[in-house]
Amino acid sequence: MTGTVAAIGAGLAVIGAGYGIGKIGGSAMEAIARQPEASGKIQGAMIIAAALIEGVALFGVVVALLQG
Amino acid sequence: MTGTVAAIGAGLAVIGAGYGIGKIGGSAMEAIARQPEASGKIQGAMIIAAALIEGVALFGVVVALLQG
Amino acid sequence: MTGTVAAIGAGLAVIGAGYGIGKIGGSAMEAIARQPEASGKIQGAMIIAAALIEGVALFGVVVALLQG
Amino acid sequence: MTGTVAAIGAGLAVIGAGYGIGKIGGSAMEAIARQPEASGKIQGAMIIAAALIEGVALFGVVVALLQG
Amino acid sequence: MTGTVAAIGAGLAVIGAGYGIGKIGGSAMEAIARQPEASGKIQGAMIIAAALIEGVALFGVVVALLQG
Amino acid sequence: MTGTVAAIGAGLAVIGAGYGIGKIGGSAMEAIARQPEASGKIQGAMIIAAALIEGVALFGVVVALLQG
Amino acid sequence: MTGTVAAIGAGLAVIGAGYGIGKIGGSAMEAIARQPEASGKIQGAMIIAAALIEGVALFGVVVALLQG
Amino acid sequence: MTGTVAAIGAGLAVIGAGYGIGKIGGSAMEAIARQPEASGKIQGAMIIAAALIEGVALFGVVVALLQG
Amino acid sequence: MTGTVAAIGAGLAVIGAGYGIGKIGGSAMEAIARQPEASGKIQGAMIIAAALIEGVALFGVVVALLQG
Amino acid sequence: MTGTVAAIGAGLAVIGAGYGIGKIGGSAMEAIARQPEASGKIQGAMIIAAALIEGVALFGVVVALLQG
Amino acid sequence: MTGTVAAIGAGLAVIGAGYGIGKIGGSAMEAIARQPEASGKIQGAMIIAAALIEGVALFGVVVALLQG
Amino acid sequence: MTGTVAAIGAGLAVIGAGYGIGKIGGSAMEAIARQPEASGKIQGAMIIAAALIEGVALFGVVVALLQG
Amino acid sequence: MTGTVAAIGAGLAVIGAGYGIGKIGGSAMEAIARQPEASGKIQGAMIIAAALIEGVALFGVVVALLQG
Amino acid sequence: MTGTVAAIGAGLAVIGAGYGIGKIGGSAMEAIARQPEASGKIQGAMIIAAALIEGVALFGVVVALLQG
Repeated sequence: MTGTVAAIGAGLAVIGAGYGIGKIGGSAMEAIARQPEASGKIQGAMIIAAALIEGVALFGVVVALLQG
Repeated sequence: MTGTVAAIGAGLAVIGAGYGIGKIGGSAMEAIARQPEASGKIQGAMIIAAALIEGVALFGVVVALLQG
Repeated sequence: MTGTVAAIGAGLAVIGAGYGIGKIGGSAMEAIARQPEASGKIQGAMIIAAALIEGVALFGVVVALLQG
Repeated sequence: MTGTVAAIGAGLAVIGAGYGIGKIGGSAMEAIARQPEASGKIQGAMIIAAALIEGVALFGVVVALLQG
Repeated sequence: MTGTVAAIGAGLAVIGAGYGIGKIGGSAMEAIARQPEASGKIQGAMIIAAALIEGVALFGVVVALLQG
Repeated sequence: MTGTVAAIGAGLAVIGAGYGIGKIGGSAMEAIARQPEASGKIQGAMIIAAALIEGVALFGVVVALLQG
Repeated sequence: MTGTVAAIGAGLAVIGAGYGIGKIGGSAMEAIARQPEASGKIQGAMIIAAALIEGVALFGVVVALLQG
Repeated sequence: MTGTVAAIGAGLAVIGAGYGIGKIGGSAMEAIARQPEASGKIQGAMIIAAALIEGVALFGVVVALLQG
Repeated sequence: MTGTVAAIGAGLAVIGAGYGIGKIGGSAMEAIARQPEASGKIQGAMIIAAALIEGVALFGVVVALLQG
Repeated sequence: MTGTVAAIGAGLAVIGAGYGIGKIGGSAMEAIARQPEASGKIQGAMIIAAALIEGVALFGVVVALLQG
Repeated sequence: MTGTVAAIGAGLAVIGAGYGIGKIGGSAMEAIARQPEASGKIQGAMIIAAALIEGVALFGVVVALLQG
Repeated sequence: MTGTVAAIGAGLAVIGAGYGIGKIGGSAMEAIARQPEASGKIQGAMIIAAALIEGVALFGVVVALLQG
Repeated sequence: MTGTVAAIGAGLAVIGAGYGIGKIGGSAMEAIARQPEASGKIQGAMIIAAALIEGVALFGVVVALLQG
Repeated sequence: MTGTVAAIGAGLAVIGAGYGIGKIGGSAMEAIARQPEASGKIQGAMIIAAALIEGVALFGVVVALLQG
């Protein structure tokens, strides 16, 4: 076996980001469907929450890249 | 055993992307079915949320490719 | 044991694609059943969302193929 | 222990295909039961969605076969 | 330890087939119970969907057999 | 440690068969309870769906036996 | 460590049998409670479905015993 | 590390038996609470279903004992 | 690392017993709350079902003790 | 790495006990809330069911202690 | 790698205790909210059930400490 | 690989504490929302239940620290 | 492979903290939405419960840092 | 295999953060949809709860970076 184990860490980080943003995004879809007139507020809050996850996830992938 | 372990990291990244975009897309389908007239807004928000995951996932797969 | 470990990564990528497209497709079935007259819109959104997953998944399998 | 590890990747690919097509097919059954007159549309969309998974899964199994 | 690891791949393939056909079959049972007069359509769609999984699963088991 | 690893593959195949036939059988019980007069149709469809899983599972166990 | 790995395969086979027959049996209990007058039909179908699992499971345990 | 690996197989067999009989028994409790006058039929069917699991489980534990 | 692996098997057996008896006992609590006047019947059936699990579990732990 | 593997078995046994007694206790809380006047009967049955798990769990931990 | 494996056993024991007491405590919260006037009875039963888990868990952690 | 395995035990202990206190705290939030006037009682019971988990968890982490 | 295993323990501790605080926070969101006028009480209880998890989690990460 | 194991710890930390913030954010979306006029309060509480997780997660990733 060759390759770096660190790539597995990058993959796990993507799982975390995918789970989190997927949960937020999925709930946002349902929220817009229930209150179409509040779609501005919902989309704003969705991007704030997703950004918090995106930041940690990119940080985690970069750590994996540095340690390869 | 031959091959690089990094490919497992690429696979995990696809699991993350699949889970996340699947959750968002699945909720979007149900949202369009409940509010067909809001399908423009929903599809727009769906693509924004999916893009956030797509970006991290492609980054993760590229990291796995570099470290093979 | 012989063979490359990378094939496991290809398998994991298919799990991700299967989960994601399965979730989107399953919700699309239910959405068409609830709103048969909106089946055009739903099928369109279904293919967009599935394509986003399909792309990452094929990329992941190709990475596994290159690193075998 | 003998044999190739790649066969495990083939097995994982079948899990992904089984999960995804199973989810789509199961929802299609319920959709036909709820709207029997829309069974043509539903069956059509079911085959499109299943084909997207089938393609990736067969690709994954072939990758496992090549790397044995 | 003796024996081939490939048999584990065959077992995983059966898990995938069992999950998928089980999901489709279980939903078909409930669909027939809800709409007994549409049992022909439902059984037809059930066999199409199950065949898509059966094909990949048998392919996966054969790959495991070849690589033992 | 002695013994063949292939027996683990046989065990996994039984898990797959148990899950699938259990899901189909369990739904069939509930379907008969909801529509006792359609028990013939339901039992017929149950056996067709279960046979599809039984076939793959026995094939998988035989593969495990051959590769022990 | 001594002992054969094959015993783990036997244990996995029992998990599969337990899950499947448990699911069928549990649904049968609820079905009898909902339709006590159809308990004959339900018990008959329960034993047919359970027998299909029992057969594969015993086959799997015997394979594990042979390969110890 | 000393001891036989086969004891893990015995433990897995007990997990299978516990899951299955627990599912059947739990549903039987609820069934008796819903139809107290049918408690004879329910208890009879519970013991038949549990016996099918008990048999495989004891067989599995004995296999583990023989292969220690 | 010292110690016997068999103790892990004993732990798994306790997990099985805990899951099964916990499921039965939890359902029995809810059943008594729904039908307090049938608490005798329910407690009787609870002990029969729990005894079936208890027996296999103790057998499994003793097997683990013998093979330490 | 030092220490005995048997401690992991003890930990698994506690997981089993925690799951089982937690399930029984949680259902007992809800049962008392639904039928406060039957709290004596419920608490009695709760202790009987919990004792059956407690016994196996302590036995399992003692086995782990003996085999350290 | 240094350190004792036994600490993993201690961690598993805490998982068991956390799951069990968390389940009991969470149900107790909901029970008090539904029947505030029965909060004395509920809190009493909660502490009895939690004590049964606490005892096994502390025993398990002590076993892990002794075997380090 | 360097570092002590015991840190994994500490991480598992935190998972246990997080799961348990999270379950209790989450249910307490919902309970206060349903019965705001009983928030004193609920918060009191929440802290008692959480303390029982906190104690075992800290004990587990300290054990992991001692055995590093 | 280089690096310390202890970092995995730190990651597990963050999973525990994320699960617990996420559960508490998510329930708090729903509680505020149901009772906006009780948002002060709910936010107070949320911070108390989250602090209990935060403490154990930071302790766990510090243990992982010390043992690297 | 090359690379540091610590990157796996970073990936696990991102999973924890993603799960937790995803749960909080998803519930916040639904809460805003149910009470659009309370979106200020909800977004405030969402950021407080998410910050508690963000802090531990970044700490965990930094620990992984230091120990690479």
